[in-house]
Amino acid sequence: MNFVDRGLVAVHKFRRWWSRRVLRQPWMLEQFGNPFLQESMLLDKARCEAYREAIFRTVKPGDVVVDLGAGTGLLSFFAAQAGARRVYALEMSKIADVTAELIEANAVRDRITLIRKNSRRARLPERCDVLVTETLSAFCFDTENTIEYVADARERFLKPGARIIPESADTFLLPFASQAFGAGRLPLPFYGIDFRPFRKRLFGEFGLVRASGKPFVALSQAALCYHIDFRKDIKNPTKTFVPFRITTDGRLDGFLGWFEARLCEGVTLSNSPYLPLTHWWQHCLPVAEQPSYRAGQMLLLCLDPNMVAGEAHWKYAVQPAISDSLPVRQE
Amino acid sequence: MNFVDRGLVAVHKFRRWWSRRVLRQPWMLEQFGNPFLQESMLLDKARCEAYREAIFRTVKPGDVVVDLGAGTGLLSFFAAQAGARRVYALEMSKIADVTAELIEANAVRDRITLIRKNSRRARLPERCDVLVTETLSAFCFDTENTIEYVADARERFLKPGARIIPESADTFLLPFASQAFGAGRLPLPFYGIDFRPFRKRLFGEFGLVRASGKPFVALSQAALCYHIDFRKDIKNPTKTFVPFRITTDGRLDGFLGWFEARLCEGVTLSNSPYLPLTHWWQHCLPVAEQPSYRAGQMLLLCLDPNMVAGEAHWKYAVQPAISDSLPVRQE
Repeated sequence: MNFVDRGLVAVHKFRRWWSRRVLRQPWMLEQFGNPFLQESMLLDKARCEAYREAIFRTVKPGDVVVDLGAGTGLLSFFAAQAGARRVYALEMSKIADVTAELIEANAVRDRITLIRKNSRRARLPERCDVLVTETLSAFCFDTENTIEYVADARERFLKPGARIIPESADTFLLPFASQAFGAGRLPLPFYGIDFRPFRKRLFGEFGLVRASGKPFVALSQAALCYHIDFRKDIKNPTKTFVPFRITTDGRLDGFLGWFEARLCEGVTLSNSPYLPLTHWWQHCLPVAEQPSYRAGQMLLLCLDPNMVAGEAHWKYAVQPAISDSLPVRQE
Repeated sequence: MNFVDRGLVAVHKFRRWWSRRVLRQPWMLEQFGNPFLQESMLLDKARCEAYREAIFRTVKPGDVVVDLGAGTGLLSFFAAQAGARRVYALEMSKIADVTAELIEANAVRDRITLIRKNSRRARLPERCDVLVTETLSAFCFDTENTIEYVADARERFLKPGARIIPESADTFLLPFASQAFGAGRLPLPFYGIDFRPFRKRLFGEFGLVRASGKPFVALSQAALCYHIDFRKDIKNPTKTFVPFRITTDGRLDGFLGWFEARLCEGVTLSNSPYLPLTHWWQHCLPVAEQPSYRAGQMLLLCLDPNMVAGEAHWKYAVQPAISDSLPVRQE
């Protein structure tokens, strides 16, 4: 890198720092402008149909609805179809250019109001009966700062007793082995070459995997990791220890994570690896070392979302628990 | 956007402009540092095994080899396994941090020399017998400026009569209809909503699709679009007109593109949609309007790679050709 380039990189870094930490504009601002990302969400039938069902069950004719992170506005259109008198669609990314055109093309400007702002800086002219949001990540809360945005919206936008979609969500973790998508997918050695330095890079941190429909071995039962209540919570989850009792002998390739959201009474939505693949795929904490465990052993996962400006930078470490007594929580 | 933010966006834009146009650093510099992208290439068996075969057939014991855009260095390791006396692995992205560790871990520092530079600014201490490169895009030449990099390397790095892998490549285009991955995948109307403004955005420009193994209707035979000879070519392909004679009645969702590369005598590699999916997927020029055609009609695609700094910004338009005489090429 020459001198000018170094200067430009520094300016770029400063710009990102300023935008994220000072202006608090998350990565989604750029990301969600991408029509291919929007398409993957629109063509995710499990997602769209569960939300449609929940909105049709929850929104009553004449209701005022707020849609946090509206994207192309699909949920706002569902709310209008369900009879909402007015929908406030909040969308700050560039996809809102298209959303405005969709509102125009469908002649619903008198019922859907697009507000191109970060919800925290927005003000609504009236309080709402229903809040609807699909700002869920593969582990529910860790990329879009959903919990804090909902908490802020609950306080400033909603009438007392207003309904929220989703109501709540549970997140799960499962220790697994898989040749198809785990650390086992990159053989050792690889074409006769020692690829461990690359494996360390690839399997050293959190990623997403397409686990649904592919073969894997669950080394234990899935453990409930966090319970999120969108009607009450105000803060993001913090560091925790998750214990697992191994039920099947095997090599540990990593931990699969997913959520199970309760959208409303009777309607749930999940990206569990035991269900067909959604656009979320699965959250995965890979373990490059692939240690082996035997049935009956206890295993302890130290897990820290390490949230910075509403975005997780996952830290995790596996500890074999020698006795089978549950560990004491430490700070 | 406030005043400070506008300034920062301007700085960011200037930085990109400077980096691309002045320093001529392409997007790959950042992109290929991503271990998940590297993984998709490493786990692409068709790619790795064809290159391995071609390298084992071409590299003779004692040869000096240059690997343009080495990535993790897989092809360099293959060349060393085939008996090369010395391999110069040129890699400018951050993945070279890992490549250096791999060379160390495999104790081949005396045979593989990593050079962390854009090949155009690199100098080699000796001329080479073989050039090997896998800097191919889904349409062969359109994202990594392969043709111009190879031309430069041919002149400055190679002995007379040196072998080049790949020797040549053909690119193909096919007019198609598909509910699975074409413009047909987003139904009209969508949940009772007029989604045309979004469709126009999504299907208005070039993208990649996973067509292999999915159902589609070919409206005509595939047409040879460009022939690339890595042993001779010095410039990127330019604007062209591709005629198709419709053989099957149907709605046009777009054009699928792919390459068929001849790595060496007897070894080919292709991302044709008629073969199993590779990490390249398929090149796709979607047509949002989905016009219908009948067997016997002629169809003319005006195609312009519109290369800027070695990267295509595809422009294309479909014209029905009324008579079945071949069109006259116009500028």
